[in-house]
Parts: sequence; C-alpha cells; structure tokens
Amino acid sequence: MPDIYYVNGRFTDPENAVVSVEDRGFLFGDGVYEVLRAYGRHIFRIDEHLDRLSRSLNAININFLAFSELKNLSYEALKRSGYDDALIYIQITRGVAKRSHVPPKDMHPTVVIIVYKTPVLPVDLFIKGAKAILYPDIRWSKCYIKSLQLLPNTLALSQASAESSIEAIMHRNGIVTECGSSNVFIVKDKQVKTHPADETILHGVSRKTVLEILQNQGMTVSENEFTIEELLESDEVFITNTLVEVMPITQIDDKPVSDGNPGQITLMLMEEWTNQRDVLFGRSKA
Amino acid sequence: MPDIYYVNGRFTDPENAVVSVEDRGFLFGDGVYEVLRAYGRHIFRIDEHLDRLSRSLNAININFLAFSELKNLSYEALKRSGYDDALIYIQITRGVAKRSHVPPKDMHPTVVIIVYKTPVLPVDLFIKGAKAILYPDIRWSKCYIKSLQLLPNTLALSQASAESSIEAIMHRNGIVTECGSSNVFIVKDKQVKTHPADETILHGVSRKTVLEILQNQGMTVSENEFTIEELLESDEVFITNTLVEVMPITQIDDKPVSDGNPGQITLMLMEEWTNQRDVLFGRSKA
Repeated sequence: MPDIYYVNGRFTDPENAVVSVEDRGFLFGDGVYEVLRAYGRHIFRIDEHLDRLSRSLNAININFLAFSELKNLSYEALKRSGYDDALIYIQITRGVAKRSHVPPKDMHPTVVIIVYKTPVLPVDLFIKGAKAILYPDIRWSKCYIKSLQLLPNTLALSQASAESSIEAIMHRNGIVTECGSSNVFIVKDKQVKTHPADETILHGVSRKTVLEILQNQGMTVSENEFTIEELLESDEVFITNTLVEVMPITQIDDKPVSDGNPGQITLMLMEEWTNQRDVLFGRSKA
Repeated sequence: MPDIYYVNGRFTDPENAVVSVEDRGFLFGDGVYEVLRAYGRHIFRIDEHLDRLSRSLNAININFLAFSELKNLSYEALKRSGYDDALIYIQITRGVAKRSHVPPKDMHPTVVIIVYKTPVLPVDLFIKGAKAILYPDIRWSKCYIKSLQLLPNTLALSQASAESSIEAIMHRNGIVTECGSSNVFIVKDKQVKTHPADETILHGVSRKTVLEILQNQGMTVSENEFTIEELLESDEVFITNTLVEVMPITQIDDKPVSDGNPGQITLMLMEEWTNQRDVLFGRSKA
C-alpha cells in the first residue's frame, strides 16, 4: 500500500508530486498546514482540524473556502492509501507568483495532501517515559497560526534528537510555552497546568482533547503560565500532539522528573484517550 | 529575453522549474537565500553575497560547499538571460525527505537560481522620497540568517502596500530593528545611526556598502540601537537593499520626516553609490 499524494486537483505518484519553485510556500513559507490522524479509517476530530486550518488561513489573509471539498478529499486520499491508521498531512499555500514580498491580488492557493502510514513509536517511550531537553523559544510571535515558519522548530527538534530526546521544551523569558511539535502540561499536587491558548502557542487539538478528558473526570486545570523552575519541580510532565497523543516526560536534560516514572494523572490520560478512541471507532482494547 | 530558471543541476523552462512537495523548503521553510544584482552583466559584490549565504547555511547546519560552482552558475544564468541589469535569486534548501521535523542525515540540498529583469522603480520614490509605516517586529530571533522564514515580512510589506507605502519599519520593545526587506538608517545633527549587526537583523550587503561610503567620506557612523521616538525626530531617514540601493524615507505613517524632503546625507549617498557603481562597471553617468 503506497503513500498518497494529491496536488492541486489531482492524485499523483510521488515523482510527480511537485510545485513550482515560485510557489510562495517554497519562497516565503507563506502557507499553513494541518496533520490529521485516522484510526480505523476514521479521521479523528477532522472538523476541529479544518476549523483551525480556516483560522490559520484567515490570520494570514489567504482566501480559501472549499473546506467541505477538502474534507471529502481527505477521506478519498485515506481510502486510496488503503491504510487503516494513517497521518493525513494537508498544506495550503498562497499559490504561485513571480517573487515579491507583496503578493498579487486574486491568487489561487496551492493545496497539497499527503497520506502516510502512522509511524509506530517505541512502546518504552510510553511505559518508561521519554526524555526532553530545554530549548529557547526563538520562534516568531504568532505561533497560534499553524504556519510553515518551522525552521526554529526543526532546529529545536534536531538538537533534541542529537541528545537522544523526543522533544524540545521551549521557554521565553523564563516561561515555558510549548514544545517543538507538541503542547506541554505539568502536574503539581494533583493540579494540572498548561500555557494559556494565546498567540504564542499552537492551540493543539490534542491539548483540547486532554482538557476535555480532565474536565469530564471532574478535575480542574489551570491554563496559566508557568516557569522553568515550576517545570523542573513538577510531579508529572507530559506532552500532547496528534502522533504521540499523550506521552509522559520523565527526564528533562539530565534531571529526572520527580522519581523518574510516569505519573498517575498522565497514565489515566493515556488510558482515557485510548478508551475514547476505541469507543469512537468501535475497536476492542488491546 | 526570458527569465531563467535553474533547478538542481539543469536550466529549465518556467513550467518545469519545480520541486517535490516534500522539499523541506516547501514543508518547513528549511532553507536560505540571496538576492544579487547585476549591473552591466557584472554581479555586484557577489563574493560578499556568497559569504553570507555560507554563513546562513552554516547557522542551520546545511552542508553545502560548492560556492565556486554556484558563482559560475550565477554568471551562466545571467548570460543565458541576456539581461544587462538583473536580479539573481539563489535559494538553497536542505533537500527532499519524508516529512519529519528532524531531517535524515546526508541530505542533498536543493539549489534553485532564478534570473529576473531588474524592475524599474518610480523615480519619484528617489526624488521626493518614499512613505513607510511602523510595524511590530514579530519575526523569530535569528534574523541574521537569511532564511525562508519570511511570512512575517510578507505580512508587514502587504500592510505597507495597503497603506501606499514602500516599506514597513519594524520595532521590537520600542527599538527600531530594520524593515521588511531593507535596513534602515537615521541621521540627526549630521550623525548617522543604524542598528548594530547582531542576531536580530540581516547584515545587509547594501548596509555595509553605505557604511563604507560614509567612512570614505570621513563621516562617523553609530552602529547602535535607536528608538521609535529617535526615528520620528530624525533629520533624515533612508533605507538600503539590493534593489533600492539607497532610498529616502520622507514620511512615516502620517508624519513627514523633518521637512518632508530627502536630506543632504541621503542625497550624497545616492550619488556616491551611483558613482561607485559606474566606476566599477565602466558606465557613463546618465
């Protein structure tokens, strides 16, 4: 079963999945994206992802309205792949024009969809927890826009990888914001805390899913800033994104988080996520 | 005479000047660029541009060493274009790989060269001076790297264009940094000032050319931070980049700079630039 590529109106083989060198996505990073996940051929929270895509497009004034077509295309791409579990990558750029910072009026956005088989992560990352590094948040100030301004993220995650870590926990002026490709939560004395969904972080769909699970469990969550010191003195740290769902962080740089094992609230969230997913998609538990 | 496109080892027509949708330049803005200018078939300060390109590549760990080949290719592209005066755009990205923030080892960088005819700017912008707007500097913190992280620049310049302005003068914490696609200088009581060449601004080749002209004239220049207030109370404001060379800014938002006319030091720099260029390239003055 192959990966699937869709570019501007047609499905194609990988060799012909190309865009002009004058696509503004290539020249300026002038575009936005989403990564969706299919479980058992159902795409998880697709409407929330497309809503966020719409907000990202609006924030940078790209005129694109064909969201119901995009939803159909996402399912069509998934079906063509033959994958039950997959990542569906959607990217929309402002389109192709002669290079100039100021785009011409009436551009035609470029639409790309790629379907990948969901990579299998080492199970030890979930059982024993993962290592993360601290890294300065050097990004621009509009990180709520899920844009292609991802060079700082790739630099952060490359450094994490070089230090055998799964993530880079970023901080600005002493405040922990989020990670290179995930949101981060801390737990202290049963109180869960995560950075508020302002302009400086991505408003993760998985972040929101975790907040809902916690509220359904009757737990309060503080959406407030926290410092590096609070992070390092936490009882639990975990990260959330579409691929890892919920993953315990048990070591930050050379320091274990608490006793170095995944904490109880993290484990509860991992289990509840799996339950919810299985109920939604009618799968029996492993 | 056509624009010229070169992609990864071959010259091609515009329709076939394409890159994979999995090029990291397209997915992550993971690449760097230069804009060079040819006057009379000579490329202005090409070695300085290629040195900066090398520094940008090193800063993001892209392994590319073929600079003498790139220099030859730039001249070959210029020759093929038939243009006497042209802009030579060079972009190098990390290359093509399955999407993952952390790139695989041993990637093959993508090399793109495009030659455009130099656009002719309205002469009034130089005689009467141009309008600029103030705009917050929302970019990442490594702007000395000439990278594809240009969405904030395009947003700033789009806003400027909507307000009939040539540039967006950006400021961070009350300090003027640079513009959307140029460096900015102020003059007060014959003293020229521009932001120091630290990590927060691009180290413009034109900026350096102006500093050299001023030093040759026996003038001192202060490479120090200045505030929005200092900007607005200046006797002269001018911007520098490869396309505009030196351009007077005579209005900022709704406020004239000084008496609203280009200042004497700005006019001297415009004239000296033209002299230097004409001496270098053996052209008679207009």
